[in-house]
Amino acid sequence: MNLENKIVLASASPRRRELLSQIGINPRIIPSQVEETITAHQPDEAVMELSRQKAEDVAFSQKPGVLVIGADTVVACQGKILGKPKSHEEACQMISMLQGRNHQVYTGVTLIYCGEKGKKTVTFAEKTEVFVSPMTQEEIWEYGWSSEPMDKAGAYGIQGRFKAFIERIEGDYNNVVGLPVCRVYHEIKKMMEEE
Amino acid sequence: MNLENKIVLASASPRRRELLSQIGINPRIIPSQVEETITAHQPDEAVMELSRQKAEDVAFSQKPGVLVIGADTVVACQGKILGKPKSHEEACQMISMLQGRNHQVYTGVTLIYCGEKGKKTVTFAEKTEVFVSPMTQEEIWEYGWSSEPMDKAGAYGIQGRFKAFIERIEGDYNNVVGLPVCRVYHEIKKMMEEE
Repeated sequence: MNLENKIVLASASPRRRELLSQIGINPRIIPSQVEETITAHQPDEAVMELSRQKAEDVAFSQKPGVLVIGADTVVACQGKILGKPKSHEEACQMISMLQGRNHQVYTGVTLIYCGEKGKKTVTFAEKTEVFVSPMTQEEIWEYGWSSEPMDKAGAYGIQGRFKAFIERIEGDYNNVVGLPVCRVYHEIKKMMEEE
Repeated sequence: MNLENKIVLASASPRRRELLSQIGINPRIIPSQVEETITAHQPDEAVMELSRQKAEDVAFSQKPGVLVIGADTVVACQGKILGKPKSHEEACQMISMLQGRNHQVYTGVTLIYCGEKGKKTVTFAEKTEVFVSPMTQEEIWEYGWSSEPMDKAGAYGIQGRFKAFIERIEGDYNNVVGLPVCRVYHEIKKMMEEE
């Protein structure tokens, strides 16, 4: 696929950008400025809604031929949705909740292709089940007060030091990092073939 | 755990070294020189046997207080064991075999703690199920002739460009990269607590 200068990522996340560049897609970065509004109550619906708001906000001002990617990730554990922690104390609380059991990571993705005759939109959510090992109070404290949890949904980064506590996953690993690149790659391919 | 200067990795793999350093363990590297001999027929037994040979070879000359890690990874698909490809042609053959179905990645690990009163050994194998998406001939060819497959069991690196084709996994992701760090971390912790 020749996608040079065609892909725009409506997210400031350096991890999403890196995932795309690792599969040969180097997007332009135009972070969405949209005020995020969630009306959905289910995590998969909420991330789809947010990814769509971000993608639409940026696609609005794009020229024909451009494909915009919007994405949003949350962690769901025991009926609660966890976003990014606002403090190290909150990070420790989230880690305490996650340790010793499984939880779900949802990433919602919206792709908008700006065609000559109008826009084409695809939205989906990908779920990955994550199993965290039991942790001691000291391990929770040490991790919660490190720099890793602060900008991440659920207060951990699967690709960082926290990997010592990830027993297993079921689903797409990169979905937990922030973008289900396998599905994204195949959906982009399909959109491009249809054009 | 204070493991400074205590851990030796009996493997030249830069990926295993990096995984350990990401969880705060910076091992000395002493690659095993052992002539690898497999007598086992099952993939899990074969990787345990090889990891043990590597660890024992290096532990032989270590002082008390040192913990040696040996590891070996193979890919099993439709009853065949795939090691590292010897050519780009063989890499393309392996990728053709893996695409559109699931396979198993086995990493065998042996930990040898060199105590004052003798050595203590733990050996285990970890399995991860990997589901690869269908690929076109062009995608197989392009990947098989890139530099990525050549030093990797099964001819792919899950952490590189091939992530575009990994639909999902069941198990420890880092086991596919080359070392099940979560299990390794907890086994080392247990060994150190028992000392």
